[in-house]
Amino acid sequence: MPHASVLLRHDQAPGVLDPQAFAMCIDAAFKAAQACMACSDICLAVEDARLLIKCVRLNSDCADLCVATGWMLSREPHPDRETMQRQIEACAKACQETAAECERLATLYPHTKVCAAACKRCVAACLDALRLVCRGR
Amino acid sequence: MPHASVLLRHDQAPGVLDPQAFAMCIDAAFKAAQACMACSDICLAVEDARLLIKCVRLNSDCADLCVATGWMLSREPHPDRETMQRQIEACAKACQETAAECERLATLYPHTKVCAAACKRCVAACLDALRLVCRGR
Amino acid sequence: MPHASVLLRHDQAPGVLDPQAFAMCIDAAFKAAQACMACSDICLAVEDARLLIKCVRLNSDCADLCVATGWMLSREPHPDRETMQRQIEACAKACQETAAECERLATLYPHTKVCAAACKRCVAACLDALRLVCRGR
Amino acid sequence: MPHASVLLRHDQAPGVLDPQAFAMCIDAAFKAAQACMACSDICLAVEDARLLIKCVRLNSDCADLCVATGWMLSREPHPDRETMQRQIEACAKACQETAAECERLATLYPHTKVCAAACKRCVAACLDALRLVCRGR
Repeated sequence: MPHASVLLRHDQAPGVLDPQAFAMCIDAAFKAAQACMACSDICLAVEDARLLIKCVRLNSDCADLCVATGWMLSREPHPDRETMQRQIEACAKACQETAAECERLATLYPHTKVCAAACKRCVAACLDALRLVCRGR
Repeated sequence: MPHASVLLRHDQAPGVLDPQAFAMCIDAAFKAAQACMACSDICLAVEDARLLIKCVRLNSDCADLCVATGWMLSREPHPDRETMQRQIEACAKACQETAAECERLATLYPHTKVCAAACKRCVAACLDALRLVCRGR
Repeated sequence: MPHASVLLRHDQAPGVLDPQAFAMCIDAAFKAAQACMACSDICLAVEDARLLIKCVRLNSDCADLCVATGWMLSREPHPDRETMQRQIEACAKACQETAAECERLATLYPHTKVCAAACKRCVAACLDALRLVCRGR
Repeated sequence: MPHASVLLRHDQAPGVLDPQAFAMCIDAAFKAAQACMACSDICLAVEDARLLIKCVRLNSDCADLCVATGWMLSREPHPDRETMQRQIEACAKACQETAAECERLATLYPHTKVCAAACKRCVAACLDALRLVCRGR
Protein backbone atom coordinates (compact mmCIF):
# COMPACT_ATOMS: atom_id res chain seq x y z
CA MET A 1 0.00 0.00 0.00
CA PRO A 2 1.46 3.36 -0.93
CA HIS A 3 1.60 6.25 1.46
CA ALA A 4 -1.47 8.40 2.05
CA SER A 5 -0.43 10.90 -0.57
CA VAL A 6 -2.33 8.78 -3.03
CA LEU A 7 -5.49 9.90 -1.36
CA LEU A 8 -4.67 13.47 -2.16
CA ARG A 9 -5.08 12.99 -5.86
CA HIS A 10 -8.56 11.49 -5.50
CA ASP A 11 -10.04 13.61 -8.21
CA GLN A 12 -10.00 12.30 -11.71
CA ALA A 13 -9.51 15.59 -13.52
CA PRO A 14 -9.11 15.22 -17.29
CA GLY A 15 -5.54 14.34 -18.17
CA VAL A 16 -4.61 12.99 -14.75
CA LEU A 17 -3.12 9.53 -15.15
CA ASP A 18 -4.00 6.62 -12.85
CA PRO A 19 -3.25 8.11 -9.42
CA GLN A 20 -2.83 4.71 -7.76
CA ALA A 21 -0.09 3.59 -10.14
CA PHE A 22 1.66 6.93 -9.91
CA ALA A 23 1.47 6.88 -6.12
CA MET A 24 3.02 3.41 -6.11
CA CYS A 25 5.88 4.72 -8.23
CA ILE A 26 6.41 7.82 -6.08
CA ASP A 27 6.39 5.61 -3.02
CA ALA A 28 8.87 3.12 -4.51
CA ALA A 29 11.12 5.94 -5.68
CA PHE A 30 11.30 7.54 -2.23
CA LYS A 31 11.93 4.18 -0.57
CA ALA A 32 14.72 3.44 -3.04
CA ALA A 33 16.16 6.91 -2.43
CA GLN A 34 16.26 6.32 1.33
CA ALA A 35 17.80 2.88 0.91
CA CYS A 36 20.44 4.24 -1.48
CA MET A 37 21.40 7.03 0.87
CA ALA A 38 21.71 4.65 3.81
CA CYS A 39 23.61 2.11 1.72
CA SER A 40 26.00 4.73 0.44
CA ASP A 41 26.79 5.96 3.93
CA ILE A 42 27.47 2.44 5.22
CA CYS A 43 29.69 1.79 2.18
CA LEU A 44 31.72 4.86 3.11
CA ALA A 45 32.47 3.45 6.53
CA VAL A 46 33.68 -0.04 5.58
CA GLU A 47 37.38 -0.72 5.95
CA ASP A 48 38.13 -1.06 2.25
CA ALA A 49 35.90 1.78 1.12
CA ARG A 50 37.75 2.12 -2.18
CA LEU A 51 36.16 -1.13 -3.34
CA LEU A 52 32.81 0.51 -2.84
CA ILE A 53 33.35 3.82 -4.63
CA LYS A 54 31.34 2.62 -7.59
CA CYS A 55 28.52 1.64 -5.23
CA VAL A 56 28.66 5.02 -3.47
CA ARG A 57 28.50 6.91 -6.76
CA LEU A 58 25.66 4.80 -8.16
CA ASN A 59 23.76 5.07 -4.88
CA SER A 60 24.17 8.84 -4.79
CA ASP A 61 22.92 9.30 -8.33
CA CYS A 62 20.11 6.89 -7.80
CA ALA A 63 18.91 8.73 -4.70
CA ASP A 64 18.97 12.07 -6.50
CA LEU A 65 17.21 10.74 -9.60
CA CYS A 66 14.56 8.94 -7.54
CA VAL A 67 13.67 12.12 -5.65
CA ALA A 68 13.60 14.25 -8.80
CA THR A 69 11.40 11.66 -10.51
CA GLY A 70 9.12 11.44 -7.49
CA TRP A 71 8.63 15.21 -7.53
CA MET A 72 7.86 15.16 -11.25
CA LEU A 73 5.25 12.42 -10.83
CA SER A 74 3.58 14.55 -8.14
CA ARG A 75 2.69 17.19 -10.74
CA GLU A 76 -0.48 16.08 -12.47
CA PRO A 77 -1.85 16.50 -15.09
CA HIS A 78 1.71 17.00 -16.20
CA PRO A 79 2.26 19.41 -19.11
CA ASP A 80 5.17 17.52 -20.64
CA ARG A 81 4.75 13.76 -20.95
CA GLU A 82 7.83 13.36 -23.13
CA THR A 83 10.24 14.69 -20.49
CA MET A 84 8.38 12.65 -17.90
CA GLN A 85 8.93 9.52 -19.95
CA ARG A 86 12.64 10.23 -20.35
CA GLN A 87 13.05 10.99 -16.67
CA ILE A 88 11.32 7.78 -15.59
CA GLU A 89 13.54 5.86 -18.00
CA ALA A 90 16.67 7.46 -16.54
CA CYS A 91 15.44 6.68 -13.03
CA ALA A 92 14.68 3.05 -13.90
CA LYS A 93 18.12 2.65 -15.46
CA ALA A 94 19.84 4.17 -12.43
CA CYS A 95 17.90 1.83 -10.12
CA GLN A 96 18.76 -1.17 -12.30
CA GLU A 97 22.49 -0.42 -12.28
CA THR A 98 22.50 0.26 -8.56
CA ALA A 99 20.67 -2.98 -7.85
CA ALA A 100 23.15 -4.90 -10.00
CA GLU A 101 26.16 -3.42 -8.22
CA CYS A 102 24.58 -3.97 -4.79
CA GLU A 103 23.85 -7.59 -5.64
CA ARG A 104 27.39 -8.10 -6.88
CA LEU A 105 28.68 -6.87 -3.52
CA ALA A 106 26.13 -8.65 -1.34
CA THR A 107 28.23 -11.67 -0.42
CA LEU A 108 30.97 -9.52 1.05
CA TYR A 109 28.79 -6.61 2.18
CA PRO A 110 25.36 -7.89 3.18
CA HIS A 111 24.05 -4.40 3.94
CA THR A 112 23.75 -3.85 0.19
CA LYS A 113 20.95 -6.43 -0.09
CA VAL A 114 18.29 -4.12 1.33
CA CYS A 115 19.18 -1.42 -1.18
CA ALA A 116 19.22 -3.88 -4.09
CA ALA A 117 15.71 -4.99 -3.22
CA ALA A 118 14.38 -1.42 -2.91
CA CYS A 119 15.95 -0.48 -6.23
CA LYS A 120 14.43 -3.49 -7.98
CA ARG A 121 10.98 -2.62 -6.64
CA CYS A 122 11.48 0.89 -8.01
CA VAL A 123 12.43 -0.46 -11.44
CA ALA A 124 9.16 -2.41 -11.53
CA ALA A 125 7.12 0.59 -10.41
CA CYS A 126 8.83 2.80 -13.00
CA LEU A 127 7.93 0.34 -15.75
CA ASP A 128 4.27 0.43 -14.66
CA ALA A 129 4.30 4.22 -14.64
CA LEU A 130 6.03 4.31 -18.02
CA ARG A 131 3.29 2.23 -19.58
CA LEU A 132 0.73 4.78 -18.39
CA VAL A 133 2.75 7.75 -19.56
CA CYS A 134 3.35 6.26 -23.01
CA ARG A 135 -0.31 5.34 -23.39
CA GLY A 136 -1.28 8.88 -22.27
CA ARG A 137 0.83 10.60 -24.91
CA MET B 1 6.98 0.48 11.18
CA PRO B 2 9.57 2.46 9.29
CA HIS B 3 10.87 1.44 5.91
CA ALA B 4 13.50 -1.29 5.60
CA SER B 5 16.32 1.24 5.60
CA VAL B 6 16.34 0.89 9.36
CA LEU B 7 17.67 -2.60 8.88
CA LEU B 8 20.64 -1.26 7.04
CA ARG B 9 22.05 0.46 10.03
CA HIS B 10 21.93 -2.69 12.17
CA ASP B 11 25.41 -2.25 13.54
CA GLN B 12 25.84 -0.28 16.69
CA ALA B 13 29.15 1.35 15.88
CA PRO B 14 30.34 3.77 18.56
CA GLY B 15 28.75 7.16 18.10
CA VAL B 16 25.77 5.90 16.08
CA LEU B 17 22.56 7.14 17.68
CA ASP B 18 19.48 4.93 18.11
CA PRO B 19 18.92 3.70 14.54
CA GLN B 20 15.24 2.89 15.11
CA ALA B 21 14.38 6.44 16.21
CA PHE B 22 16.39 7.95 13.39
CA ALA B 23 14.76 5.64 10.85
CA MET B 24 11.32 6.72 12.15
CA CYS B 25 12.30 10.35 11.63
CA ILE B 26 13.72 9.74 8.14
CA ASP B 27 10.56 7.85 7.27
CA ALA B 28 8.28 10.59 8.62
CA ALA B 29 10.29 13.28 6.85
CA PHE B 30 10.03 11.56 3.47
CA LYS B 31 6.31 10.94 3.92
CA ALA B 32 5.78 14.58 4.84
CA ALA B 33 7.84 15.64 1.82
CA GLN B 34 5.69 13.56 -0.52
CA ALA B 35 2.47 14.85 1.04
CA CYS B 36 3.67 18.46 0.78
CA MET B 37 4.59 18.10 -2.86
CA ALA B 38 1.23 16.53 -3.69
CA CYS B 39 -0.64 19.13 -1.63
CA SER B 40 1.22 21.98 -3.27
CA ASP B 41 0.42 20.73 -6.75
CA ILE B 42 -3.28 20.34 -5.96
CA CYS B 43 -3.31 23.85 -4.45
CA LEU B 44 -1.92 25.19 -7.73
CA ALA B 45 -4.85 23.79 -9.64
CA VAL B 46 -7.74 25.09 -7.53
CA GLU B 47 -9.83 27.87 -9.00
CA ASP B 48 -8.74 30.58 -6.59
CA ALA B 49 -5.10 29.54 -6.41
CA ARG B 50 -4.04 32.96 -5.12
CA LEU B 51 -5.62 32.12 -1.76
CA LEU B 52 -3.28 29.18 -1.59
CA ILE B 53 0.03 30.84 -2.44
CA LYS B 54 1.05 30.78 1.18
CA CYS B 55 0.25 27.09 1.34
CA VAL B 56 2.20 26.40 -1.86
CA ARG B 57 5.26 28.23 -0.57
CA LEU B 58 5.16 26.57 2.85
CA ASN B 59 4.64 23.16 1.24
CA SER B 60 7.54 23.67 -1.15
CA ASP B 61 9.94 24.68 1.62
CA CYS B 62 8.73 21.92 3.85
CA ALA B 63 9.32 19.28 1.16
CA ASP B 64 12.84 20.57 0.52
CA LEU B 65 13.75 20.78 4.20
CA CYS B 66 12.32 17.33 4.94
CA VAL B 67 14.42 15.73 2.21
CA ALA B 68 17.61 17.58 3.24
CA THR B 69 17.01 16.57 6.87
CA GLY B 70 16.33 12.97 5.89
CA TRP B 71 19.63 12.83 4.00
CA MET B 72 21.50 14.29 6.95
CA LEU B 73 20.01 11.75 9.35
CA SER B 74 21.19 8.98 7.00
CA ARG B 75 24.81 9.89 7.71
CA GLU B 76 25.81 8.19 10.94
CA PRO B 77 27.81 8.56 13.13
CA HIS B 78 27.42 12.15 12.06
CA PRO B 79 30.47 14.38 12.49
CA ASP B 80 28.52 17.54 13.36
CA ARG B 81 25.72 17.15 15.89
CA GLU B 82 25.24 20.88 16.27
CA THR B 83 24.31 21.45 12.62
CA MET B 84 22.17 18.34 12.79
CA GLN B 85 20.29 19.75 15.75
CA ARG B 86 19.70 23.07 13.99
CA GLN B 87 18.57 21.37 10.83
CA ILE B 88 16.08 19.15 12.64
CA GLU B 89 14.75 22.23 14.44
CA ALA B 90 14.30 24.07 11.14
CA CYS B 91 12.55 21.03 9.67
CA ALA B 92 10.23 20.68 12.67
CA LYS B 93 9.34 24.37 12.47
CA ALA B 94 8.62 24.15 8.74
CA CYS B 95 6.38 21.13 9.31
CA GLN B 96 4.58 22.87 12.15
CA GLU B 97 3.84 25.98 10.07
CA THR B 98 2.76 23.94 7.08
CA ALA B 99 0.45 21.82 9.22
CA ALA B 100 -1.08 24.97 10.72
CA GLU B 101 -1.76 26.53 7.31
CA CYS B 102 -3.14 23.26 5.92
CA GLU B 103 -5.48 22.90 8.89
CA ARG B 104 -6.63 26.51 8.49
CA LEU B 105 -7.56 25.73 4.88
CA ALA B 106 -9.04 22.29 5.49
CA THR B 107 -12.71 23.31 5.62
CA LEU B 108 -12.56 24.87 2.18
CA TYR B 109 -9.90 22.61 0.72
CA PRO B 110 -10.15 19.15 2.23
CA HIS B 111 -7.12 17.85 0.30
CA THR B 112 -4.92 19.76 2.75
CA LYS B 113 -5.91 17.45 5.64
CA VAL B 114 -3.66 14.60 4.51
CA CYS B 115 -0.67 16.91 4.34
CA ALA B 116 -1.43 18.44 7.75
CA ALA B 117 -1.45 14.98 9.31
CA ALA B 118 1.82 13.94 7.65
CA CYS B 119 3.50 17.17 8.76
CA LYS B 120 2.34 16.73 12.34
CA ARG B 121 3.72 13.19 12.43
CA CYS B 122 7.02 14.58 11.18
CA VAL B 123 7.08 17.22 13.92
CA ALA B 124 6.69 14.47 16.52
CA ALA B 125 9.41 12.34 14.94
CA CYS B 126 11.74 15.35 14.75
CA LEU B 127 11.25 16.01 18.46
CA ASP B 128 12.18 12.39 19.24
CA ALA B 129 15.27 12.63 17.08
CA LEU B 130 16.21 15.96 18.63
CA ARG B 131 16.19 14.48 22.11
CA LEU B 132 18.68 11.85 20.95
CA VAL B 133 20.90 14.35 19.20
CA CYS B 134 20.97 16.71 22.17
CA ARG B 135 21.74 13.86 24.56
CA GLY B 136 24.48 12.64 22.21
CA ARG B 137 26.30 15.99 22.14
CA MET C 1 33.68 31.18 -17.22
CA PRO C 2 32.32 28.46 -15.01
CA HIS C 3 32.57 28.56 -11.26
CA ALA C 4 35.79 27.52 -9.51
CA SER C 5 34.58 23.97 -9.07
CA VAL C 6 36.16 23.25 -12.45
CA LEU C 7 39.52 23.73 -10.83
CA LEU C 8 38.77 20.94 -8.42
CA ARG C 9 38.80 18.29 -11.06
CA HIS C 10 42.23 19.31 -12.32
CA ASP C 11 43.52 15.77 -12.47
CA GLN C 12 43.08 13.87 -15.68
CA ALA C 13 42.60 10.44 -14.17
CA PRO C 14 41.80 7.76 -16.74
CA GLY C 15 38.13 7.79 -17.62
CA VAL C 16 37.47 11.36 -16.49
CA LEU C 17 35.80 13.26 -19.30
CA ASP C 18 36.76 16.81 -20.25
CA PRO C 19 36.41 18.63 -16.91
CA GLN C 20 35.99 22.06 -18.51
CA ALA C 21 32.98 21.00 -20.59
CA PHE C 22 31.42 19.21 -17.67
CA ALA C 23 31.98 22.20 -15.41
CA MET C 24 30.27 24.42 -17.98
CA CYS C 25 27.28 22.10 -17.97
CA ILE C 26 27.12 21.89 -14.17
CA ASP C 27 27.33 25.66 -14.03
CA ALA C 28 24.61 26.14 -16.65
CA ALA C 29 22.39 23.58 -14.94
CA PHE C 30 22.61 25.31 -11.57
CA LYS C 31 22.00 28.72 -13.11
CA ALA C 32 18.95 27.36 -14.94
CA ALA C 33 17.73 25.78 -11.70
CA GLN C 34 17.97 29.09 -9.86
CA ALA C 35 16.25 30.97 -12.66
CA CYS C 36 13.44 28.38 -12.80
CA MET C 37 12.84 28.54 -9.08
CA ALA C 38 12.73 32.34 -9.13
CA CYS C 39 10.51 32.36 -12.21
CA SER C 40 8.13 29.85 -10.70
CA ASP C 41 7.76 31.86 -7.53
CA ILE C 42 7.04 35.08 -9.43
CA CYS C 43 4.49 33.22 -11.59
CA LEU C 44 2.71 32.13 -8.41
CA ALA C 45 2.23 35.72 -7.36
CA VAL C 46 0.77 37.20 -10.55
CA GLU C 47 -2.90 38.09 -10.50
CA ASP C 48 -4.04 35.44 -12.96
CA ALA C 49 -1.79 32.68 -11.64
CA ARG C 50 -3.93 29.97 -13.20
CA LEU C 51 -2.63 30.98 -16.63
CA LEU C 52 0.84 30.21 -15.35
CA ILE C 53 0.29 26.77 -13.80
CA LYS C 54 1.94 25.11 -16.75
CA CYS C 55 4.92 27.42 -16.36
CA VAL C 56 5.11 26.72 -12.62
CA ARG C 57 5.05 22.97 -13.15
CA LEU C 58 7.63 23.04 -15.95
CA ASN C 59 9.85 25.35 -13.91
CA SER C 60 9.63 23.12 -10.85
CA ASP C 61 10.56 19.99 -12.78
CA CYS C 62 13.29 21.77 -14.63
CA ALA C 63 14.86 23.01 -11.40
CA ASP C 64 14.79 19.51 -9.88
CA LEU C 65 16.18 17.84 -12.98
CA CYS C 66 18.92 20.43 -13.40
CA VAL C 67 20.15 19.92 -9.84
CA ALA C 68 20.02 16.11 -10.10
CA THR C 69 21.91 16.28 -13.39
CA GLY C 70 24.48 18.68 -11.94
CA TRP C 71 25.12 16.28 -9.04
CA MET C 72 25.52 13.37 -11.43
CA LEU C 73 28.03 15.26 -13.58
CA SER C 74 30.05 15.98 -10.44
CA ARG C 75 30.80 12.27 -10.04
CA GLU C 76 33.73 11.45 -12.27
CA PRO C 77 34.87 9.06 -13.66
CA HIS C 78 31.24 8.03 -13.62
CA PRO C 79 30.52 4.31 -13.45
CA ASP C 80 27.39 4.42 -15.59
CA ARG C 81 27.60 6.47 -18.78
CA GLU C 82 24.31 5.15 -20.13
CA THR C 83 22.24 6.51 -17.23
CA MET C 84 24.24 9.73 -17.42
CA GLN C 85 23.35 10.07 -21.10
CA ARG C 86 19.65 9.50 -20.42
CA GLN C 87 19.64 11.93 -17.53
CA ILE C 88 21.31 14.68 -19.54
CA GLU C 89 18.79 14.09 -22.33
CA ALA C 90 15.89 14.38 -19.87
CA CYS C 91 17.40 17.57 -18.46
CA ALA C 92 17.91 19.09 -21.91
CA LYS C 93 14.31 18.27 -22.84
CA ALA C 94 12.98 19.82 -19.63
CA CYS C 95 15.00 22.98 -20.25
CA GLN C 96 13.81 23.16 -23.84
CA GLU C 97 10.13 22.87 -22.88
CA THR C 98 10.51 25.38 -20.07
CA ALA C 99 12.26 27.85 -22.34
CA ALA C 100 9.49 27.47 -24.93
CA GLU C 101 6.73 28.10 -22.38
CA CYS C 102 8.60 31.06 -20.88
CA GLU C 103 9.09 32.60 -24.31
CA ARG C 104 5.42 32.10 -25.12
CA LEU C 105 4.52 34.05 -21.96
CA ALA C 106 7.19 36.72 -22.27
CA THR C 107 5.06 39.42 -23.86
CA LEU C 108 2.57 39.37 -21.01
CA TYR C 109 4.98 38.34 -18.25
CA PRO C 110 8.42 39.76 -18.99
CA HIS C 111 9.96 38.13 -15.92
CA THR C 112 9.94 34.83 -17.81
CA LYS C 113 12.56 36.08 -20.28
CA VAL C 114 15.46 35.64 -17.86
CA CYS C 115 14.47 32.07 -17.19
CA ALA C 116 14.02 31.29 -20.89
CA ALA C 117 17.55 32.49 -21.58
CA ALA C 118 19.06 30.48 -18.71
CA CYS C 119 17.23 27.36 -19.86
CA LYS C 120 18.42 27.78 -23.43
CA ARG C 121 22.02 28.11 -22.26
CA CYS C 122 21.56 24.91 -20.30
CA VAL C 123 20.22 23.08 -23.36
CA ALA C 124 23.37 24.07 -25.27
CA ALA C 125 25.65 23.00 -22.43
CA CYS C 126 23.80 19.68 -22.11
CA LEU C 127 24.31 19.00 -25.82
CA ASP C 128 28.05 19.64 -25.43
CA ALA C 129 28.22 17.30 -22.43
CA LEU C 130 26.17 14.68 -24.26
CA ARG C 131 28.64 14.60 -27.12
CA LEU C 132 31.43 13.83 -24.65
CA VAL C 133 29.44 11.18 -22.83
CA CYS C 134 28.44 9.43 -26.04
CA ARG C 135 31.99 9.52 -27.36
CA GLY C 136 33.24 8.17 -24.00
CA ARG C 137 30.95 5.14 -24.07
CA MET D 1 27.90 39.97 -9.31
CA PRO D 2 25.22 37.37 -8.67
CA HIS D 3 23.55 35.43 -11.43
CA ALA D 4 20.77 37.02 -13.48
CA SER D 5 18.09 35.58 -11.25
CA VAL D 6 18.44 38.72 -9.17
CA LEU D 7 16.91 40.61 -12.05
CA LEU D 8 13.82 38.48 -11.88
CA ARG D 9 12.78 39.83 -8.53
CA HIS D 10 12.95 43.43 -9.71
CA ASP D 11 9.63 44.37 -8.20
CA GLN D 12 9.61 45.69 -4.70
CA ALA D 13 6.31 44.19 -3.57
CA PRO D 14 5.53 44.85 0.10
CA GLY D 15 7.29 42.35 2.31
CA VAL D 16 9.95 41.38 -0.23
CA LEU D 17 13.36 41.71 1.40
CA ASP D 18 16.35 43.25 -0.36
CA PRO D 19 16.50 41.19 -3.57
CA GLN D 20 20.17 41.97 -4.21
CA ALA D 21 21.32 40.60 -0.84
CA PHE D 22 19.12 37.55 -1.18
CA ALA D 23 20.37 36.91 -4.70
CA MET D 24 23.96 37.10 -3.41
CA CYS D 25 23.11 34.50 -0.79
CA ILE D 26 21.33 32.19 -3.24
CA ASP D 27 24.30 32.52 -5.57
CA ALA D 28 26.84 31.79 -2.83
CA ALA D 29 24.79 28.85 -1.60
CA PHE D 30 24.64 27.23 -5.03
CA LYS D 31 28.34 27.79 -5.62
CA ALA D 32 29.13 26.25 -2.25
CA ALA D 33 26.85 23.31 -3.07
CA GLN D 34 28.66 22.66 -6.34
CA ALA D 35 32.07 22.94 -4.69
CA CYS D 36 31.01 20.57 -1.89
CA MET D 37 29.72 17.98 -4.31
CA ALA D 38 32.91 18.13 -6.39
CA CYS D 39 35.09 18.05 -3.26
CA SER D 40 33.23 15.09 -1.86
CA ASP D 41 33.62 13.11 -5.05
CA ILE D 42 37.36 13.78 -5.22
CA CYS D 43 37.69 12.80 -1.55
CA LEU D 44 36.05 9.46 -2.37
CA ALA D 45 38.72 8.70 -4.94
CA VAL D 46 41.87 9.40 -2.89
CA GLU D 47 43.89 6.42 -1.82
CA ASP D 48 43.21 6.70 1.89
CA ALA D 49 39.56 7.64 1.54
CA ARG D 50 38.79 6.61 5.11
CA LEU D 51 40.65 9.67 6.37
CA LEU D 52 38.20 11.74 4.39
CA ILE D 53 34.90 10.20 5.48
CA LYS D 54 34.24 13.14 7.76
CA CYS D 55 34.88 15.51 4.86
CA VAL D 56 32.59 13.51 2.56
CA ARG D 57 29.77 13.54 5.09
CA LEU D 58 30.13 17.24 5.87
CA ASN D 59 30.32 18.05 2.16
CA SER D 60 27.23 16.01 1.38
CA ASP D 61 25.18 17.66 4.10
CA CYS D 62 26.45 21.06 3.18
CA ALA D 63 25.49 20.61 -0.47
CA ASP D 64 21.97 19.49 0.49
CA LEU D 65 21.44 22.28 2.99
CA CYS D 66 22.77 24.93 0.62
CA VAL D 67 20.34 23.89 -2.12
CA ALA D 68 17.38 23.70 0.27
CA THR D 69 18.27 27.14 1.64
CA GLY D 70 18.67 28.56 -1.84
CA TRP D 71 15.21 27.32 -2.80
CA MET D 72 13.71 28.82 0.35
CA LEU D 73 15.30 32.21 -0.32
CA SER D 74 13.78 32.15 -3.81
CA ARG D 75 10.28 32.31 -2.32
CA GLU D 76 9.52 35.91 -1.58
CA PRO D 77 7.76 37.51 0.26
CA HIS D 78 8.22 34.43 2.38
CA PRO D 79 5.34 33.52 4.68
CA ASP D 80 7.50 32.17 7.50
CA ARG D 81 10.49 34.27 8.48
CA GLU D 82 11.21 32.24 11.59
CA THR D 83 11.80 28.98 9.71
CA MET D 84 13.81 30.94 7.17
CA GLN D 85 16.03 32.29 9.92
CA ARG D 86 16.60 28.83 11.38
CA GLN D 87 17.34 27.34 7.99
CA ILE D 88 19.88 30.01 7.12
CA GLU D 89 21.53 29.47 10.50
CA ALA D 90 21.74 25.72 9.88
CA CYS D 91 23.19 26.37 6.42
CA ALA D 92 25.76 28.83 7.77
CA LYS D 93 26.81 26.34 10.45
CA ALA D 94 27.15 23.52 7.93
CA CYS D 95 29.29 25.73 5.68
CA GLN D 96 31.45 26.78 8.61
CA GLU D 97 32.13 23.20 9.71
CA THR D 98 32.80 22.08 6.16
CA ALA D 99 35.21 24.95 5.59
CA ALA D 100 37.03 24.10 8.82
CA GLU D 101 37.45 20.44 7.90
CA CYS D 102 38.53 21.30 4.35
CA GLU D 103 41.12 23.74 5.66
CA ARG D 104 42.41 21.16 8.11
CA LEU D 105 42.94 18.75 5.21
CA ALA D 106 44.31 21.29 2.74
CA THR D 107 48.01 20.58 3.25
CA LEU D 108 47.61 16.91 2.39
CA TYR D 109 44.68 17.29 -0.02
CA PRO D 110 44.92 20.61 -1.82
CA HIS D 111 41.67 20.04 -3.72
CA THR D 112 39.81 20.90 -0.52
CA LYS D 113 40.96 24.54 -0.66
CA VAL D 114 38.49 25.51 -3.37
CA CYS D 115 35.62 24.11 -1.37
CA ALA D 116 36.77 25.79 1.85
CA ALA D 117 36.78 29.15 0.09
CA ALA D 118 33.31 28.66 -1.42
CA CYS D 119 31.91 27.62 1.95
CA LYS D 120 33.40 30.64 3.68
CA ARG D 121 31.86 32.96 1.10
CA CYS D 122 28.53 31.28 1.74
CA VAL D 123 28.86 31.80 5.51
CA ALA D 124 29.37 35.52 4.91
CA ALA D 125 26.41 35.73 2.52
CA CYS D 126 24.22 33.84 5.00
CA LEU D 127 25.10 36.30 7.74
CA ASP D 128 24.10 39.20 5.48
CA ALA D 129 20.80 37.51 4.62
CA LEU D 130 20.19 36.69 8.30
CA ARG D 131 20.48 40.35 9.26
CA LEU D 132 17.76 41.19 6.73
CA VAL D 133 15.50 38.37 7.83
CA CYS D 134 15.84 39.25 11.51
CA ARG D 135 15.19 42.91 10.81
CA GLY D 136 12.16 41.94 8.67
CA ARG D 137 10.50 39.94 11.41
